[in-house]
Amino acid sequence: MTTFDSLWESILDVGREPSTGGYRRFAWNAADLTLREWFTGEAASRGMTVEEDRNGNTWAWWMPTGWSGDPKGAFVTGSHLDSVPDGGAFDGPLGVVSAFHAVDLLRARGVDPAVPIAVVAFADEEGARFGVACVGSQLSTGALNPERALALTDNDGTTLADALRDAGRRPEHLGVDDTLTDRVGIYVELHVEQGRALVDMKRPVAVASSIWPHGRWHLTFRGEANHAGTTRLIDRRDPMLPFASAVHAARIEAARHDSVATFGKVRVTPNGANAIPSRVDAWLDARAADEATLTTVVEAVRDAAAQYARDGRITLEFEAESVTPTVAFPDAPRRRVQAALSRLGDVPVLATAAGHDAGILSAKVPTAMLFVRNPTGISHSPDEYAEISDCRTGAEALADVMADWVAP
Amino acid sequence: MTTFDSLWESILDVGREPSTGGYRRFAWNAADLTLREWFTGEAASRGMTVEEDRNGNTWAWWMPTGWSGDPKGAFVTGSHLDSVPDGGAFDGPLGVVSAFHAVDLLRARGVDPAVPIAVVAFADEEGARFGVACVGSQLSTGALNPERALALTDNDGTTLADALRDAGRRPEHLGVDDTLTDRVGIYVELHVEQGRALVDMKRPVAVASSIWPHGRWHLTFRGEANHAGTTRLIDRRDPMLPFASAVHAARIEAARHDSVATFGKVRVTPNGANAIPSRVDAWLDARAADEATLTTVVEAVRDAAAQYARDGRITLEFEAESVTPTVAFPDAPRRRVQAALSRLGDVPVLATAAGHDAGILSAKVPTAMLFVRNPTGISHSPDEYAEISDCRTGAEALADVMADWVAP
Repeated sequence: MTTFDSLWESILDVGREPSTGGYRRFAWNAADLTLREWFTGEAASRGMTVEEDRNGNTWAWWMPTGWSGDPKGAFVTGSHLDSVPDGGAFDGPLGVVSAFHAVDLLRARGVDPAVPIAVVAFADEEGARFGVACVGSQLSTGALNPERALALTDNDGTTLADALRDAGRRPEHLGVDDTLTDRVGIYVELHVEQGRALVDMKRPVAVASSIWPHGRWHLTFRGEANHAGTTRLIDRRDPMLPFASAVHAARIEAARHDSVATFGKVRVTPNGANAIPSRVDAWLDARAADEATLTTVVEAVRDAAAQYARDGRITLEFEAESVTPTVAFPDAPRRRVQAALSRLGDVPVLATAAGHDAGILSAKVPTAMLFVRNPTGISHSPDEYAEISDCRTGAEALADVMADWVAP
Repeated sequence: MTTFDSLWESILDVGREPSTGGYRRFAWNAADLTLREWFTGEAASRGMTVEEDRNGNTWAWWMPTGWSGDPKGAFVTGSHLDSVPDGGAFDGPLGVVSAFHAVDLLRARGVDPAVPIAVVAFADEEGARFGVACVGSQLSTGALNPERALALTDNDGTTLADALRDAGRRPEHLGVDDTLTDRVGIYVELHVEQGRALVDMKRPVAVASSIWPHGRWHLTFRGEANHAGTTRLIDRRDPMLPFASAVHAARIEAARHDSVATFGKVRVTPNGANAIPSRVDAWLDARAADEATLTTVVEAVRDAAAQYARDGRITLEFEAESVTPTVAFPDAPRRRVQAALSRLGDVPVLATAAGHDAGILSAKVPTAMLFVRNPTGISHSPDEYAEISDCRTGAEALADVMADWVAP
């Protein structure tokens, strides 16, 4: 049997940028395609059947002895293999590696499952390239319209449709996966924690209670390009100024409402040191404990930005790119997961402000999540980290949950 | 004889981005190389000898009948062929096209010059790709150190040294042009006006009195990348916040001191919508009527940015990339230029806040500038414009100045 450690190490070089130490595994880029091949190879080496669904999500199936026909009521586990720009090694891949390792552990224990088991890697969870997160799972559940998805563009102007074609996929296949509710009995996603709750509690693993409502909004400030030296201040229509004001408005409103709001992505046009910009595109990420608060924060930022824009004779477009309501993971599966983990004691229950494919799938099928301790709480950074011993504990916990679920 | 109009139109398609209508002619990129071929072709068609000097500036020589040996005391005119990102058609190329047309006009008038005439196109005036302006002329006058120039990098991490090698040039040749002072009797640069003074005066052409002192400063704000959803506000070290404050500080200090200060170029790392940035690089362009005021403005922005950075636990590096002192064009050549333009009446004299190769060269040789009316004042933008009739008037004025200078 492959050890957890060797399985984990087998992908550490894929898509890693030497200059930053971070990962650049973006939807359908070379690193992403390499990881898809790795997934297929790991499935094949376990005798699991691989299928890529219509939306580019990959599934590896372990069917019960004597099972005939399509899978039904399966125990599905996994996560995603893509990263944010210069992201860490754990966010996503830890769930997929742990899923394969849990399969290995069950087999080592001689388990013959009564229902199918699948390991899944969802496509484009981070949305780093095309700007919308959880593209694969959102397409499958119908939360994202295929026409809208296909028209998304990356920074080079390549559409998702083109990227799919370049990767040998069929863009016209995108759409709702009608088999999802039949096939998936439960989806359990294991993920590195993106905060320091488990460190403070001195515990290696938690289960999720809920995901904060969150979303991403695209602000386009349009002014007038002109010479940075010769254009009098009074004649300028500089979109950088209201953008800068919006950055502060986001922080102020987030603090006021115990939530978070961030401008982490900016695109300046033409981006010349001696040219007043004609346009600043900026993306607001905002999250709050409840939907009403999230709306309050986002509307306050929008209104402030609009006022700053008007003051500077700048036009502002404010568009929601994706908004995900609160996800409360259902009680019954969570209680069963906690019971299966009894040898870890009373497993803590945590809410998270990070979006996950499990959150998207929860609209259609039962879902649960496991979190693995992160000593620094840092995520979406090359410094993201988890102890290998905690990762092993997490994978073993996932195996316990899997074994409990698929027992006859 | 080629008409001014056809000469002008012959380069309008080179390096033009269809989606914006702006030009992307950057140092040593494909468009720049095409324009260098165009320059060589235009020189050859006029029987002018082309040389590219050690710094990539190209010279086309018209030697007096019977002249032997190296050129000396020449009348040199031209400008540059590169652009800012999505720049206009006129800034730079108008001076080169007008220079070739002035040569044509002198020949049509049967002038046999007593001193050599050269048309010059200086390399990388805008600094759009490598961040430092007037690279070609600064290297030739010794204002820019060749080692520093060769190490400059573009946004893809390509050094100027690599870009030169890729273009078949020899980076080790860069350095001071010791022939400059002997060869150049005067350098006259014709340029589109980058303001509305001539419109207000209802005049087509002006001569320059001075260039405001100006410079470009690189600010690097370093924080800590982290997850935009799960990182509490209090735990963040987000460099976007002090950057935003610096944008406002620049505008406030510029207004306070009747100067200009602009953040037109920004680079965010990793630039993911759901990641707090680890780093924001921003470039401050500042200009003022005198050097003391410029220093006051820049130091005020620097100190404000440093304070904002400290408040947010961000480190700030503040580095001058290029600083150009006041250039006062000398009186005697200007009076002679004005006298040569007597058929245009009493030609106005204007100061400008835009940097030019003529400003760099003025440290070593006599220089003068002509400005051609710009109906909107817009520059460094696809909307930059001049009436073709004003451009023809400008080229004819340049021919008058040339004829006067080279008369026996």
